[in-house]
Amino acid sequence: MRQSQSLIPTLKEVPADADIKSHQLLLRAGFIRQTASGIYSFLPLGKRVLKKVEDIVREEMDRIGANEMLMPAMQPAELWKETGRWNNFGPELMRMHDRHEREFALGATHEEVVTSIIRDEVKSYKRLPLSLYQIQTKFRDEKRPRFGLLRGREFVMKDAYSFHDSFDSLDETYKHMYEAYKRIFSRCGLNFRAVIADSGSMGGKDTHEFMVLSEVGEDIIAYSDQSEYAANIEMAPVVTTYSVPEVAQKDMELVETPGKKTMQEVADYLGHGLDQGLKAIMFKVDDQLVLVVTRGDHEVNDIKLKNLYNASIVELASEEETRQLLGAGFGSLGPVGVDNKVDVIADTAVEFVRNVSCGGNKDGYHYINVNPGRDFQVKEYADLRFIQEGDPSPDGKGTIQFAKGIEVGHVFKLGTLYAERMNATFLNDQGKANPMVMGCYGIGVSRTVAAIVEQFHDDNGMVWPTAVAPYQVHLLVLNSKNEEQASLGDQLYEELIQAGVEVLYDDRKERAGVKFADSDLIGIPNRITVGKRAADGIVEFKQRSDDEKEELTIEQLRDKFTSFIGK
Amino acid sequence: MRQSQSLIPTLKEVPADADIKSHQLLLRAGFIRQTASGIYSFLPLGKRVLKKVEDIVREEMDRIGANEMLMPAMQPAELWKETGRWNNFGPELMRMHDRHEREFALGATHEEVVTSIIRDEVKSYKRLPLSLYQIQTKFRDEKRPRFGLLRGREFVMKDAYSFHDSFDSLDETYKHMYEAYKRIFSRCGLNFRAVIADSGSMGGKDTHEFMVLSEVGEDIIAYSDQSEYAANIEMAPVVTTYSVPEVAQKDMELVETPGKKTMQEVADYLGHGLDQGLKAIMFKVDDQLVLVVTRGDHEVNDIKLKNLYNASIVELASEEETRQLLGAGFGSLGPVGVDNKVDVIADTAVEFVRNVSCGGNKDGYHYINVNPGRDFQVKEYADLRFIQEGDPSPDGKGTIQFAKGIEVGHVFKLGTLYAERMNATFLNDQGKANPMVMGCYGIGVSRTVAAIVEQFHDDNGMVWPTAVAPYQVHLLVLNSKNEEQASLGDQLYEELIQAGVEVLYDDRKERAGVKFADSDLIGIPNRITVGKRAADGIVEFKQRSDDEKEELTIEQLRDKFTSFIGK
Repeated sequence: MRQSQSLIPTLKEVPADADIKSHQLLLRAGFIRQTASGIYSFLPLGKRVLKKVEDIVREEMDRIGANEMLMPAMQPAELWKETGRWNNFGPELMRMHDRHEREFALGATHEEVVTSIIRDEVKSYKRLPLSLYQIQTKFRDEKRPRFGLLRGREFVMKDAYSFHDSFDSLDETYKHMYEAYKRIFSRCGLNFRAVIADSGSMGGKDTHEFMVLSEVGEDIIAYSDQSEYAANIEMAPVVTTYSVPEVAQKDMELVETPGKKTMQEVADYLGHGLDQGLKAIMFKVDDQLVLVVTRGDHEVNDIKLKNLYNASIVELASEEETRQLLGAGFGSLGPVGVDNKVDVIADTAVEFVRNVSCGGNKDGYHYINVNPGRDFQVKEYADLRFIQEGDPSPDGKGTIQFAKGIEVGHVFKLGTLYAERMNATFLNDQGKANPMVMGCYGIGVSRTVAAIVEQFHDDNGMVWPTAVAPYQVHLLVLNSKNEEQASLGDQLYEELIQAGVEVLYDDRKERAGVKFADSDLIGIPNRITVGKRAADGIVEFKQRSDDEKEELTIEQLRDKFTSFIGK
Repeated sequence: MRQSQSLIPTLKEVPADADIKSHQLLLRAGFIRQTASGIYSFLPLGKRVLKKVEDIVREEMDRIGANEMLMPAMQPAELWKETGRWNNFGPELMRMHDRHEREFALGATHEEVVTSIIRDEVKSYKRLPLSLYQIQTKFRDEKRPRFGLLRGREFVMKDAYSFHDSFDSLDETYKHMYEAYKRIFSRCGLNFRAVIADSGSMGGKDTHEFMVLSEVGEDIIAYSDQSEYAANIEMAPVVTTYSVPEVAQKDMELVETPGKKTMQEVADYLGHGLDQGLKAIMFKVDDQLVLVVTRGDHEVNDIKLKNLYNASIVELASEEETRQLLGAGFGSLGPVGVDNKVDVIADTAVEFVRNVSCGGNKDGYHYINVNPGRDFQVKEYADLRFIQEGDPSPDGKGTIQFAKGIEVGHVFKLGTLYAERMNATFLNDQGKANPMVMGCYGIGVSRTVAAIVEQFHDDNGMVWPTAVAPYQVHLLVLNSKNEEQASLGDQLYEELIQAGVEVLYDDRKERAGVKFADSDLIGIPNRITVGKRAADGIVEFKQRSDDEKEELTIEQLRDKFTSFIGK
């Protein structure tokens, strides 16, 4: 494409309302423009990258035997009422009505539509399993759209759905999807992790999120430095083994700790490490009050607490409730002498501490030289804390590190929830009707584009991985008014196109400095510059990811063409 | 794709509410399913055809230097208010609001959005011309959605927009688009015509509709049997030359024609041909009453009348108005003795009649032996009638024939209307701001899929042209339980895929009759059948469009593979 005939409106300034690099660069390099809050137009370069990612997704979905289809954006409210999500989905679901006042949802996801199709068309186990996917514009009315393509209100998704006659069959497809997702994000050049995630309240079983590692990510990933293990920090079990220190138990003593409330303040005041104090926090677990004790250097993971009690809701007790029951406020709580008033449970690590401090259940006082078993009783020891960097990896291989991640994909075993609510049954080989077992699998395609930019940029602009670059070669003519340069540029442009290379040709009547700056900003992997040595048949070649430039004869350049093709 | 793993739910019965062949067959062959009135899901086969058409459109748009982009479906109402279309577009424009009560239109077309982008980004004639396109889901709330994909409420369109610094530049791009459209529809295998159309009230200049010839079309095309000339019947000028018959003028006479009202009744009663009577109809042209006279065998074309008067509105006068002014009702009007009461204008052909009949302006009476000039005066003779089959073609080549057409594409010179309303200006080479000149160019992609089916089917099902067929080869194993057949089928399936052939493999455990019927219904161009002679390494080959079958050895079949590739 000749740049003079394309729409690539680059910006010198960083747009005021763009907080993160991908948003800034996609705007500055002319890949996208905002049409309304959280709603973007993809300009030609942005559309090209989007299509490259789509094509990779499509190839990998097709490879595992998934069938591409296209369901409508407009979905009758009746279907959403069948699953209860018309009411439960919340204001994120865009709603509208047609000229006959019939209500519709604008597709945020398609479980309802696809299940309605399958229940009508598939009646027998002989037609299962079945995997379907689509690549399509989705709508979600985010309360606070932000970060450009990372959290928009209209975006491109790949969503896939699988239907099965058994959980074993679901497990198999889930594994294929999981592997396909790994191939997709690898082919996009991304540094990512498949992360064990919370299946939440969707009634599902296993679920993995695919997270692109990035400082702007909103989730924390705990991953092993020596294996593929990775989990959302909420989901990682702690498998650390502790041992009792070989010290004599000293006498417990109540000491004044005036105005010291945080663990750090108390530890500093008492002159010991954070791990030599105990933290006690009171929770309301489905309306039952529970005092949870951890080491001072550990944090309570409320999802583990929730799972331990098999509870629906876990929240912090109020300071008033705490004071009423234990006689002290938040900064001075401890497990000593309270097991007759409240369940005391503790993280595994607590059993192994000796001569530690804890709150005195009296404002401004702490006990010192406290020892579990002797000085307080615990109803149950369990894994109740968040994993920490340096902990052993739960799979036994390596040590845990933390990273932030952008969720770009999600695979989910739905089970029979939707099939039951929508009455999607099949006849098994005994002629008996059973609800179908389902899985769903999403990829944020436009979000992936932004995630790639987050990982691949430098101070001068984007640095596209070849597989998803808008073009493979950026051909620059430094002085378009110089006939030798213009004519060599035109000739190379034609040759590159003939050779099947995707080339953007900067034939604009702009200064060389503008062209170089735009080229770095746009970030096409290979740059060919036709400049002053055009008359000698010499051009300059440079890779965007590399500082090195080399001068090449046209013949040497032609040899390079082949390496651009098909990448 | 293995048919056992795909979703191709064929139906034996013709669905009750599907009136036309394309709708019936797309449903019966499992290409689409209705999700709501006028809203369809494309199942895997339908999606494949849709994608083939999209890819052809994309290639041809790219070839003429148009830039693909992707604009959002959700469009802020503010933009539509700038052009006045928020009010003028009518209930066909789907409207909604977000959680903050901001109003949006769901994209029915994108003139507003694209113009808003270009006015912000393109400031100079140096960046023009510019052509942009997208392939995208569109929304239009049709009052009566019908004919399946032909008139739906959510559908896939390619819409393109061009921006220019002059009408000459627009003319050039228009020509390129026109040629690209011809290539697109030719590549889809369609029998179509590029038809001169009415530019209507959009303020445009030239416009062509691309019409697929079909009995179910809603428009009538007048085309030459010897040239490329084709026009919407409303738009075709009549260039017939008439001559005065060499007869003596008889004496005019008022005769009773009791109860005879239609031209045919009067002609039969008076014993002459339809062309020997005059028809007189009273119109209100922007509130002025006009009596329009044509020959009895001709029909008034109200668009020509409207253009003659440069009027905004042309409608029939009421019978009451007619009676009040001329003293008679609809069946007895004529031009004799009324030129002092009303403008009398006549079609060119009227000047050349002799001794004809016309209404007596007295109920139940007609004049006979009427002659223009002698018996009545005409203010102006003009081309006021619809062209007819048998008339000479307006381009001077051949004779006019009629056909019905389905509009699948539209190219339109918009001029400066949108740019003026939205203040989209550029600086010309003198530094002066001018409104941009625009063109817009649409293709109904999903409608094209239906139009192809309308042209390519027989009694047994669809007959896809190779370029848009869902697969190139349908491979059938007649008895999947027979090991020799199944194993040869599997082997051929793998070989075909390896050879790059798109193949649907019917490996289902169904009876041979079901497989043949489904195969004909689905209409893939080439069929390979593995049956009883599998043990001898013999298969059957048949083209869908052909009755002939041939038995081939595997070697002979392999030679054929190459001919399937890349088609």
